[in-house]
Amino acid sequence: MSRVIVEVMLKPEILDPQGKAVHGALTRLGFGGVVDVRQGKRFELELDDEVTEERLAQIRNAAETLLSNPVIEDYTVKVEQS
Amino acid sequence: MSRVIVEVMLKPEILDPQGKAVHGALTRLGFGGVVDVRQGKRFELELDDEVTEERLAQIRNAAETLLSNPVIEDYTVKVEQS
Repeated sequence: MSRVIVEVMLKPEILDPQGKAVHGALTRLGFGGVVDVRQGKRFELELDDEVTEERLAQIRNAAETLLSNPVIEDYTVKVEQS
Repeated sequence: MSRVIVEVMLKPEILDPQGKAVHGALTRLGFGGVVDVRQGKRFELELDDEVTEERLAQIRNAAETLLSNPVIEDYTVKVEQS
């Protein structure tokens, strides 16, 4: 068993209304000193076996085609050490 | 300028229909070997200054009260080294 994390964030040039709303709420509630907030998604994939290079390439493919929209989003794939 | 990451995931005992849907889609699309998927949120907070212990305590407070629902979600706060 191993775990791979896929993080999907909007590209920096894409407007992020969710992040903006969170930023506004933080400021209103008195949490100062925050200049920007971006909100994205985080996927934890539990694999039945070791993480091989081939398996990782397959997950990158899934991240690009299913988990993110590459027109507006960037993704990163990380292997979680247990 | 510094950046703090807040990750919010459903608690392990809480059913995650979004993750289940992603898991089903991965399997249907031929991405085998994945036994479970959990989907959560990821917030990038851009701060105007250095991350101090006091600032970090404030962000943990925000994570608990605004960014997550502590009844069903867990959060982690990480300082991103730049």
